[in-house]
Amino acid sequence: MAPDSLSATFAALADPTRRAILARLTAGDVSVKALAEPFQMSLPAISKHLKVLERSGLISRGRDAQWRPCRLETHKLKDAVDWLEGYRRFWERNLDQLDSYLEELQAKEKNNDLENP
Amino acid sequence: MAPDSLSATFAALADPTRRAILARLTAGDVSVKALAEPFQMSLPAISKHLKVLERSGLISRGRDAQWRPCRLETHKLKDAVDWLEGYRRFWERNLDQLDSYLEELQAKEKNNDLENP
Repeated sequence: MAPDSLSATFAALADPTRRAILARLTAGDVSVKALAEPFQMSLPAISKHLKVLERSGLISRGRDAQWRPCRLETHKLKDAVDWLEGYRRFWERNLDQLDSYLEELQAKEKNNDLENP
Repeated sequence: MAPDSLSATFAALADPTRRAILARLTAGDVSVKALAEPFQMSLPAISKHLKVLERSGLISRGRDAQWRPCRLETHKLKDAVDWLEGYRRFWERNLDQLDSYLEELQAKEKNNDLENP
């Protein structure tokens, strides 16, 4: 089965080096050589990561044969966030439940203080 | 290198069956057997997916030895969304640029209409 787009995005994000590459690209387009420097990785190792990122659509490569700069592409990140947002009400409900529980605890403590000053 | 928490979360989400399991758990806790039914998968295959989800903290398993229901845990999803939100300004900037471009096109078209009625 060909991996669906969302699976490819999450798989590409499941690596700290690839996430660091994306973070580096937020400052602008970068050549592979310049991109490789801070990672102390070989160019082939970086190229492998770039291929995963490019295949998933998280980056694109320029058309200049000499330079081929890497560029951050954000629409797949937006798709991922849109999917995750579908779960927001569940973690917000959990936080609400925690709030109610803490309020309950505080109320009990206050009552205890009043009863046993 | 032990996988970091965010990498483990994204890796767990990089599979359509595992995402479908999470979607199923939004309706409430479910036994493995009931969970396996709609997927037409063997129990060992589902168990493998559940182990990935449990290790990444996306689900937990009940303590009842007879039943051990699966439960959706949302804090790791929230961590993932928090990380992705750091990129929101980049896709919003892209959308803004698209908007400006479309407005520019429309203005040009209007001018053309006025000049060549």
